[in-house]
Amino acid sequence: MNAHPFDAGIALEWKGADLAQGRTSPAYANFIGPFGGMTAAQAINAVLTHPQRLGEPVALTVNFAAALADGPFDVVAQPLRSNRSTQHWSVVLRQGGEAVGSATAITAARRETWGATEAPMPQAPPPAGVPTPNGRARVEWVNRYELRFIEGGIPGQWDGGDTGSAFTRLWVRDNPPRPLDFASLTAMSDVFFPRIWLRRAKFVPLGTVTMTVYFHAGEQVLRDTGAGYLLGQSQGQGIGAGYFDHSALLWNDAGTLLATTHQLVYYKE
Amino acid sequence: MNAHPFDAGIALEWKGADLAQGRTSPAYANFIGPFGGMTAAQAINAVLTHPQRLGEPVALTVNFAAALADGPFDVVAQPLRSNRSTQHWSVVLRQGGEAVGSATAITAARRETWGATEAPMPQAPPPAGVPTPNGRARVEWVNRYELRFIEGGIPGQWDGGDTGSAFTRLWVRDNPPRPLDFASLTAMSDVFFPRIWLRRAKFVPLGTVTMTVYFHAGEQVLRDTGAGYLLGQSQGQGIGAGYFDHSALLWNDAGTLLATTHQLVYYKE
Repeated sequence: MNAHPFDAGIALEWKGADLAQGRTSPAYANFIGPFGGMTAAQAINAVLTHPQRLGEPVALTVNFAAALADGPFDVVAQPLRSNRSTQHWSVVLRQGGEAVGSATAITAARRETWGATEAPMPQAPPPAGVPTPNGRARVEWVNRYELRFIEGGIPGQWDGGDTGSAFTRLWVRDNPPRPLDFASLTAMSDVFFPRIWLRRAKFVPLGTVTMTVYFHAGEQVLRDTGAGYLLGQSQGQGIGAGYFDHSALLWNDAGTLLATTHQLVYYKE
Repeated sequence: MNAHPFDAGIALEWKGADLAQGRTSPAYANFIGPFGGMTAAQAINAVLTHPQRLGEPVALTVNFAAALADGPFDVVAQPLRSNRSTQHWSVVLRQGGEAVGSATAITAARRETWGATEAPMPQAPPPAGVPTPNGRARVEWVNRYELRFIEGGIPGQWDGGDTGSAFTRLWVRDNPPRPLDFASLTAMSDVFFPRIWLRRAKFVPLGTVTMTVYFHAGEQVLRDTGAGYLLGQSQGQGIGAGYFDHSALLWNDAGTLLATTHQLVYYKE
C-alpha cells in the first residue's frame, strides 16, 4: 500500500536534537515553489515529531520569506520555553544556508472547560450536492484537494473588473480522502485561493507572507472528523498598497469549529 | 515638558547590534505583569529602531510565554532575511536568562496598487456622544486609554450567566491623546477586554498567549489620523478547552482600515 501523498509530503528525517530535513513534494507544487499549506504542515510536523514536545498545537504562525527551491531543506525546531501546561516553539526553515521561512508555535495540555462558539457553522447544502470544478487544475497541489465551492468560486471570466466581493464558502477534503490530523488541518487552512483574484477576477502575481492558525479542536475531535468534509469560509479584509489579508474559519461536518486562520498576502498590481 | 507615558513605556536602550533593553512601566501595569499591548509595542519598537530595518511593518505576531516581572528585560531583534522589498524579523524577549516572549515581524517597502476594503467601517455614533465608563480603573493600563463603548462594554452584572455574545464596538484613543504611530497602533490592537469575561460575565483567570497584527496603513495614513479616535470592533470566535480567540478590526475616524488583529487567550474556568 502506498503512503498518502500528504504523509509523504510532510515526512521529516531527524538529523540532530533540533534539526530535521524535509523535502518539497511535486504532488504539492504551486506556481513557484511548493503550496504554502504544505510548508506550514511541515513546520508544525517538526514540532509534533520533536521528542520534547508537550501537548497539542493551539497556535501556529508561519512566515514565508522566500519561495523554496525544489529539493531538501532544513527545519530547526526549538522549544523556547516550557511551562506547566504550555510550550512555546521557534521554527526556522533553511535552504542553501539562508532562512526561507520561520514559524512560532504554541502547544498545550488542554482540559475541559466551559465553552461556546461565537462562530456557528453557516447553513450549507450537503457536499454531494455541490459540484467540483471540471477538469484537472494546472497547479498540482489543487488536485490534492476536493474543493466544492458553495459561494465565491474561481472566477469564470478573468476580465479584471471589480466583482465587489472576496468571500468564499466551500467544502474541502483531501483527495484522496485521508483522516484529519493537526498537520492536514494546518494545510487545509491555506486552501482559500487568493482574495485579490476573486475580487478583481484578475490573475495578479502574489504570495502569502504570513499565516496564522488557531486550533480549536483537540485530537479526539480530529479523530471523530475522520476523512469527512470540512466547511471552510474566507472573508477578505483590507486590500491595498501591495498587501491584503483574509480571515477564515473551518468546521467539520458535525458543525464543530476546528480552526480559525488568517493570512497576509503580497500582491503586485 | 514630560514625555507621554507611552513613549516612556516603549523606550529601548540599545546595548549591542541586535540587543536592546526595555523596562516594564507602572503606567501600563496589568493584573499580573504589564499590559500585553505594551509588550507587543516594545517588540515592534525593537524592529522599528533597529539600524538594519527596511520599510514599514506589515505584520507582527507576538507570543507571550510568561508574565514579565517588573523591571528591565532584554530584547533580541534579528533580521532573518532581507529581500528586495520585504524583511523578516525574529524577536525574543528575555528576563533572568529565560525567554518570556517571542515575536516575528515583517517589514516592507509598500507601493501604491489597486486597493479596496472588504471590511468597511460600520455606522457608529460620534465619540463625543458615547460615554466613557465612570471612575478610575483598578488596572492601571486601562487608565491610559479613553474607551468609549458603543456595544459590548464591560458587564455591569458579574453574575456568571451566559450573555450569548462576545462582540464589542468602541472608540479608543490614548489618554492623554497622542499622535498615532505603528507602536501605539500595535498596543491599541490589544485593548479589547477578554471575550470570555463578556460572554460569561464572570471574572475568570486568563492571559493572551499569542496575538497577530496586520498593518493596513502606511506612515502617511497614521500621520493623517493624528491623535483622533479609532473605531475598534472585536468578535469572539471559538471558546473551549481553555482557549478562546477573537478577530478584531481598527479604523480611523475617516473610515480607513488601519489594522486587523487576532489573538488566542488561555482561560481557566
